[in-house]
Amino acid sequence: MSAFDDLLAFQRQTEALASVAGRLVWDQETVMPRGATEQRAEEMAAMESVLHERRTDPRIGEWLEAAQPRTEAEVRIAELIARDFQRTAKVPAKLAAEIARQTSLAQGIWADARANDAPQDFLPTLDNVLMLMREKATHLADGGDLYDALLDDYEPGAKGDDIAVLFDTMRPRLVALREDVLGADAQPAALTGHFAHDTQIRLARTCAAAFGYDWARGRLDIAVHPFSSGGWQDSRITTRVVESDPFNCFYSTIHEVGHSTYELGIDDDYAFTPLGRGVSMGVHESQSRIYENQMGRGRAFTGWLYQRMSDAFGGLSVTDADAFYATANRVTPGYIRTEADEVQYNLHIMLRFDLERDLVAGRLDVEDLPEAWNARFLRDFGVAVDRPANGALQDVHWSVGLFGYFPTYALGNVYAGCLNSAMRAAVPDLDAALARGEAGPGVEWLRENVQRHGGLLPPRILIEQATGAAISPEPLLDYLETKFGEIYRL
Amino acid sequence: MSAFDDLLAFQRQTEALASVAGRLVWDQETVMPRGATEQRAEEMAAMESVLHERRTDPRIGEWLEAAQPRTEAEVRIAELIARDFQRTAKVPAKLAAEIARQTSLAQGIWADARANDAPQDFLPTLDNVLMLMREKATHLADGGDLYDALLDDYEPGAKGDDIAVLFDTMRPRLVALREDVLGADAQPAALTGHFAHDTQIRLARTCAAAFGYDWARGRLDIAVHPFSSGGWQDSRITTRVVESDPFNCFYSTIHEVGHSTYELGIDDDYAFTPLGRGVSMGVHESQSRIYENQMGRGRAFTGWLYQRMSDAFGGLSVTDADAFYATANRVTPGYIRTEADEVQYNLHIMLRFDLERDLVAGRLDVEDLPEAWNARFLRDFGVAVDRPANGALQDVHWSVGLFGYFPTYALGNVYAGCLNSAMRAAVPDLDAALARGEAGPGVEWLRENVQRHGGLLPPRILIEQATGAAISPEPLLDYLETKFGEIYRL
Repeated sequence: MSAFDDLLAFQRQTEALASVAGRLVWDQETVMPRGATEQRAEEMAAMESVLHERRTDPRIGEWLEAAQPRTEAEVRIAELIARDFQRTAKVPAKLAAEIARQTSLAQGIWADARANDAPQDFLPTLDNVLMLMREKATHLADGGDLYDALLDDYEPGAKGDDIAVLFDTMRPRLVALREDVLGADAQPAALTGHFAHDTQIRLARTCAAAFGYDWARGRLDIAVHPFSSGGWQDSRITTRVVESDPFNCFYSTIHEVGHSTYELGIDDDYAFTPLGRGVSMGVHESQSRIYENQMGRGRAFTGWLYQRMSDAFGGLSVTDADAFYATANRVTPGYIRTEADEVQYNLHIMLRFDLERDLVAGRLDVEDLPEAWNARFLRDFGVAVDRPANGALQDVHWSVGLFGYFPTYALGNVYAGCLNSAMRAAVPDLDAALARGEAGPGVEWLRENVQRHGGLLPPRILIEQATGAAISPEPLLDYLETKFGEIYRL
Repeated sequence: MSAFDDLLAFQRQTEALASVAGRLVWDQETVMPRGATEQRAEEMAAMESVLHERRTDPRIGEWLEAAQPRTEAEVRIAELIARDFQRTAKVPAKLAAEIARQTSLAQGIWADARANDAPQDFLPTLDNVLMLMREKATHLADGGDLYDALLDDYEPGAKGDDIAVLFDTMRPRLVALREDVLGADAQPAALTGHFAHDTQIRLARTCAAAFGYDWARGRLDIAVHPFSSGGWQDSRITTRVVESDPFNCFYSTIHEVGHSTYELGIDDDYAFTPLGRGVSMGVHESQSRIYENQMGRGRAFTGWLYQRMSDAFGGLSVTDADAFYATANRVTPGYIRTEADEVQYNLHIMLRFDLERDLVAGRLDVEDLPEAWNARFLRDFGVAVDRPANGALQDVHWSVGLFGYFPTYALGNVYAGCLNSAMRAAVPDLDAALARGEAGPGVEWLRENVQRHGGLLPPRILIEQATGAAISPEPLLDYLETKFGEIYRL
């Protein structure tokens, strides 16, 4: 065996163990008995301990030194292993353990503070987490930008300054669109009624099948917060059911099918290597968003869904396909990111991105965060935040140390805009298929141009190669202005 | 930290990892997508590799050398860790790997041979597995008995010679009882009808609750071969549904509740130590059997079940509780161990026990096994085996190297007989409770006297301490003769 083969064999086993740890998380969120939390914590800690030991195994350094990769894929595998190994090596074990411990505690403190609307109960803890993450970033940055060092975990190669320029371009048009839409005379009706749990699940399965979900390599379960989990031969999705709001179930399902088919669409040869998973959070989100929004919430697919829902629920409060399309894309004011529509979602992200960059750079003190949040929210959304749980306390991310993660949601939307533009040009009959409940031609194009590559190509190169154009916010903004301009008759 | 604390901390993590591996097996048999077999095999292999490395870690020997256990529990923990460490050390790694490889292949070859009724396709493979297991036994036995060395994995401390004496005492009475029962005039009717899947599951959950199954620490799923999985805070059960035979579902459920509540009943302080699981296969089976048979198939509980089933299925083909009791305990001729009733089950085990002892001792050649099986079956059951799939090919055990496992099933029945006798004396109102669908008083007695001890006491001491008497086949045989004598009016 060559050094590269040794390295790869070791890595494959590490990836298999990481896959097992991921399966435990799925289990915990879907089927685990409620009394098993303490046991599961010990099991997860044991797995993490084994994984940490393997990821810092000094043999990796020796193998990398001696490895002579022979193909493009092998070169990239060695590069990605080296990248992770070096990043892990830069962070002192004691600091990594302290971060794990503090963020685990902080998550509970955050949940209590949010429940009690009591920011003062959480801010000292957040300050502590931020301090630890800045320390980690300092180790990782080698004198470079701290925020970029953290961002690199989620969107490798992206830079905070570039994202800031991108977002600053987008913000005025999104703020204007938001104002126009909410001020328009033509306001779509809400869907009202009772939508039985089992019927929703049955239709959610039909939606997943419409988007090509491979049931031989996946399954659908219920979770409080929908997520997808796993890859290669076993990528599972979850959804939730709100009996007054069936869109929640169907579009959560389609969103997770997007994440899941990305993983399932990766070349089998890359399984259990660093190429065998989505290349970045942004690209991942581009897949879930293009399934959910550009395809799932388009006029063609909602026309099909309107029929299916009418049949399944025996009549709807909205009685024609056009009105249903508008209802499925209804924009309403709201404080909460996770409930936001296509028009407002990115504004939520930009707010968090700017604030977290300021926090990491030391330009904003944690104690001033709620006020800064509220001022910015008023500026971008035209509304004052009514209570902390609807403001700076709403997201779990910062409590668990996820600084640098938020922008990948909006990057995903930007990528989805670019990909949608190219996909529509390449697959002119896509809407005709979607009107029949068949996303297949779109899914195929995405698999061929994005998904199958897994981690082979860096995010920017991947998207630009798929679209034949530089990444730009224009396609997304044009799409949003056209779509919502039409729905709201602007 | 003392050497013992170091040893225990290491062991806890190993146990947590083993628990994760067990959870993967549960996942595979219940919820895993069917296309994930290759991935799961790699995940399991990775877990096994980590576990093997930990179990042979030389530090265990050093810690054991320096350990100064302070309590009875610590002494036993050190003893059990030492026992496993020494056993693992005795088997060369190359042989262990070869056994893993060959038995994995053999299982598939066995399944094909059984499907095709073609023993000649399997016997050379079995010969190879037997050779490897004899080699392993030679390493383990230190010049002692080969069969005992294998048996020790499943029923620590038991000896083949003692079991042979025990079984030889039991056989004549069981053969006689079998003949009397099958020759009796009073033959109970079979239950006929269609029993809907969902109703069976609902009633299975009611049965599990009647036997005190803790839903906060468990769950019920469907599996091809019912099993239970896990312990401490998370012990799950499975059952199967045959729509023409509801007893299959209900008694599989109660059987697995017996296994599962044993694990859940162990003292919490023993969790993730060698004391935190059932002490032997025989004791485990004693719990599942006493739940299923002595309590579940008794007149009191079947009276309650008769009412529940009549209500749930809207009338039954058997129309009074007495006849239902007889039907639930119906004895019919059959070749298959897993379908056998209380009267015939142990005869199936004794046949296998004698044959596998002869195989391991070299007194019987594998090529002569089918003929020896058939001759013995004719002798004990009075019927000639009609085809190999109903004879020597019926069980998976030998193909995967499980020599020494079979007798634990019958030992479990013997223990259950002893425990039932003591439990009935200690809990005189148990039948009154069972008639109300409440096994609680019996379950409590078993928890207090057997289950809570986990691995603290060796099997024989545990049972003798619980019953206040030496282990004997008499209580089981008396119970069977009384029960079936009454049902069959002998």
